[in-house]
Amino acid sequence: MENAIFEATLDQLTSGGYARLTMEGVAGAARTGKAALYRRWASKDELVIDALDATLPRPYDTPDLGSAHDELLQLIGAFTTAVTSRVGAALHALMAEIDQEQAEVFKGFIEDRVIGPTTATILEILRRGAERGDVRPGAATPLVADVIPAMLLYQAKIRGFQDLGPDFAARLVDEVLQPIIRA
Amino acid sequence: MENAIFEATLDQLTSGGYARLTMEGVAGAARTGKAALYRRWASKDELVIDALDATLPRPYDTPDLGSAHDELLQLIGAFTTAVTSRVGAALHALMAEIDQEQAEVFKGFIEDRVIGPTTATILEILRRGAERGDVRPGAATPLVADVIPAMLLYQAKIRGFQDLGPDFAARLVDEVLQPIIRA
Repeated sequence: MENAIFEATLDQLTSGGYARLTMEGVAGAARTGKAALYRRWASKDELVIDALDATLPRPYDTPDLGSAHDELLQLIGAFTTAVTSRVGAALHALMAEIDQEQAEVFKGFIEDRVIGPTTATILEILRRGAERGDVRPGAATPLVADVIPAMLLYQAKIRGFQDLGPDFAARLVDEVLQPIIRA
Repeated sequence: MENAIFEATLDQLTSGGYARLTMEGVAGAARTGKAALYRRWASKDELVIDALDATLPRPYDTPDLGSAHDELLQLIGAFTTAVTSRVGAALHALMAEIDQEQAEVFKGFIEDRVIGPTTATILEILRRGAERGDVRPGAATPLVADVIPAMLLYQAKIRGFQDLGPDFAARLVDEVLQPIIRA
């Protein structure tokens, strides 16, 4: 049931945007009652955040694969898969509205839940690589770590998600990141 | 007078956003009449686009300085100066709204006037450097060229313009771009 509610929430977000999403609409699509939804989520903000949180990749999960190249490839692959799937479309619809004043809460969520952990994980991969020896020590900087989320955001906002082909993660690692980080 | 009108347009955009900008407000701030504005600009869309166009940096102006490093530094410097100035604040306010359906025209303008020429200029700098010998030939790719606008957009959207310190251009070139492009 929770899964059906989250799927309905993301679908409503994708098709109509945040402003038009309602607890009634989600309840109907998930074949449950509005009262049941309100028992768990006090507002649609909380529901949307829980639905995104449950479906977004968890950057901290990236294990030590013995190679910074492979770890970055796995991390970027997880995000490119996510942004071209249901949660990505929902997040895209939401991000179209997050500069508006009323959506500051989502900007905070995205920074805390996506940007922050992703940047921290990338820096950890770079530092582990520098210790291991497959990353140039000077390359483990916050600005270098920003390149990955920056390129993902740019592709999403400017080039359009559809251009994130299946080889995007490999091209980003080989053309852009490896030259920066290799020892 | 034209300059005063453009300044008033950017100021209105910055303080109130696109939705609240009016021809009357701009005319009043520029100490001219609404009729005079309408004689030249049929709508506020056209006025905003002309005001941005007149004040944004022109990437094509980047001359051959005999060094890809210096050319990229100059190009990025021009944009970091712009985004921390009046036109940057106005563009930031506008970009907060360009995902909305009614603002597709501005997205087209930004792509045609900013993204397109900037990417083309960066690719030209990389190709010229590859011929000259100070850029690794394999580095002159569209994905590498995307790194600069991607990092500028990311700083603007996520980190906030205020974090674009005076050394941002130098750090971006030295920490990120030079390792990718050096021969």
